[in-house]
Amino acid sequence: MESEWIKWLRERLPTSPGVEVGLGDDAAVLRAGAASSSRIVVTTDLLTDQVHFELGKHDPRQIGYKALAVNLSDLAAMAARPTAAFVSIALPHSGGLELAKQIYEGFLPLAERYEVAIAGGDTNSWAESLVISMTLLGQTTDRGPLLRRGVLPGDQLLVTGTFGGSILGRHLQFEPRVNESLYLHGAYQLHAGLDCSDGLLLDTHRLCEESGCGALIDLQAVPISPQAEQLTQQSADGRSALDHALSDGEDFELILAVPPAEAERILSDQPLDVPLTRIGEFVDEPGLWQTTAAGRAALSPRGFLHG
Amino acid sequence: MESEWIKWLRERLPTSPGVEVGLGDDAAVLRAGAASSSRIVVTTDLLTDQVHFELGKHDPRQIGYKALAVNLSDLAAMAARPTAAFVSIALPHSGGLELAKQIYEGFLPLAERYEVAIAGGDTNSWAESLVISMTLLGQTTDRGPLLRRGVLPGDQLLVTGTFGGSILGRHLQFEPRVNESLYLHGAYQLHAGLDCSDGLLLDTHRLCEESGCGALIDLQAVPISPQAEQLTQQSADGRSALDHALSDGEDFELILAVPPAEAERILSDQPLDVPLTRIGEFVDEPGLWQTTAAGRAALSPRGFLHG
Repeated sequence: MESEWIKWLRERLPTSPGVEVGLGDDAAVLRAGAASSSRIVVTTDLLTDQVHFELGKHDPRQIGYKALAVNLSDLAAMAARPTAAFVSIALPHSGGLELAKQIYEGFLPLAERYEVAIAGGDTNSWAESLVISMTLLGQTTDRGPLLRRGVLPGDQLLVTGTFGGSILGRHLQFEPRVNESLYLHGAYQLHAGLDCSDGLLLDTHRLCEESGCGALIDLQAVPISPQAEQLTQQSADGRSALDHALSDGEDFELILAVPPAEAERILSDQPLDVPLTRIGEFVDEPGLWQTTAAGRAALSPRGFLHG
Repeated sequence: MESEWIKWLRERLPTSPGVEVGLGDDAAVLRAGAASSSRIVVTTDLLTDQVHFELGKHDPRQIGYKALAVNLSDLAAMAARPTAAFVSIALPHSGGLELAKQIYEGFLPLAERYEVAIAGGDTNSWAESLVISMTLLGQTTDRGPLLRRGVLPGDQLLVTGTFGGSILGRHLQFEPRVNESLYLHGAYQLHAGLDCSDGLLLDTHRLCEESGCGALIDLQAVPISPQAEQLTQQSADGRSALDHALSDGEDFELILAVPPAEAERILSDQPLDVPLTRIGEFVDEPGLWQTTAAGRAALSPRGFLHG
């Protein structure tokens, strides 16, 4: 949502002792109770027809899968273990219960794989298009949540997987990096992180903003997905595969800030089934930067300097 | 939602050790963590334009108020203390952020009154009508949650407030019985309870179904709201004020099952600002019943025998 709205919200929402992390991260972090040290992590996403999916074009099972997967990805961004989901659906009159069943059939196997209980929800119908609202609860590990804030200048910028071209199908079928995040957060020291939903540059910029620093990106190192290459070949719009990788979004990969020695260890271990790549480092100066022949140049969060 | 859907869900959703109460009650009850005795209570409601409210006719502030109030009422039904809310809004393109602000302005004072933190959400816009999805978290007290199951035959059927005619305005302005429920659950022994959202008879029937018993209703004792009387006077549809009280719904009063001696104590104490009334008792035989000159007669959960 627009930053004007977030600003309005931040000015009006009172702080609360039970809320450790509220607006501005991938999920909220709440105290479970006065007597407990455990933390509850909560995230919620609202998906609407023709914006987040296209009913008629996309299989309702894929839509259901995505509705849970985007929430799982938000918990992965916090290094939290998912526990229970609440699913609300506004069904169009045409389709009705059969559509609801297909949506459930789409996410139930994913819920089972990550041991997420479907613990409640609200299903009703109305005269307009399909809306799915999902709220996912999780728990932090002993290491606490992985936040967007906490980046230190000098931290290395690491990412999982490859970027770009998710519109060709991956945005409906991606595997949320829940296990990867829990493993990395447990085995290594991470300073901060988030999941890439709106584009590699834009989300890296968010990490910087929350931490009060900048990032120097090594554009040559950005791992480009085969789908990003495919999009460039198919289209005459002049957008390079790198451009797609930097700004397409819906990659749902992890973007991490890792202290230098720890980053070296991760890159040498390569402990995941998916590759981990260093694509730059965090710097004092706010903003996004690239190195050119003429020196350091600014990178726009939504694009980059060609050439 | 239709019982066919609930049945389908119950057959497919796996049970989970972390979920103490899942589908079928006013809210879910989750364990906060292995080491914790506290319980998290979660409820969610999806409100759509022209079904739960009418944008254009109703003030967006009233719509926002209702969105939080119905969720607070669900937590009241569980005797849980509300802690944090997550608010998702799909905004129509016309209206946009101004509409979102008015909705927030509608529920923020209510959130403050009940110490509910607005801890997250998802606001976006689309080409169709307003949708509000709210998820509310709470915590049980030392006494644990008040459930729909647990009624014993012989328990007295007690209600707060008056019933019927909420459509004249109360359905947008009601005070959720959070404090009343917490007080009663702490000071007296209650066996079971829920909030009246779909009609006094229908919701009493639900309490009976979850507990495997029936209820004998004393129709003469049902507290009828002034609005129910007003509806009867305004309309020539033949519906009595009692009929409205029994089946209108959206009263958001508490319906409680209380052991006989405890019920006597409550009725004599009258410890709330709102009246507590005995309107019948629970019986072995499943279903809803009334006493007539000819003996005991069945009451339909959606209507009643006239005469």
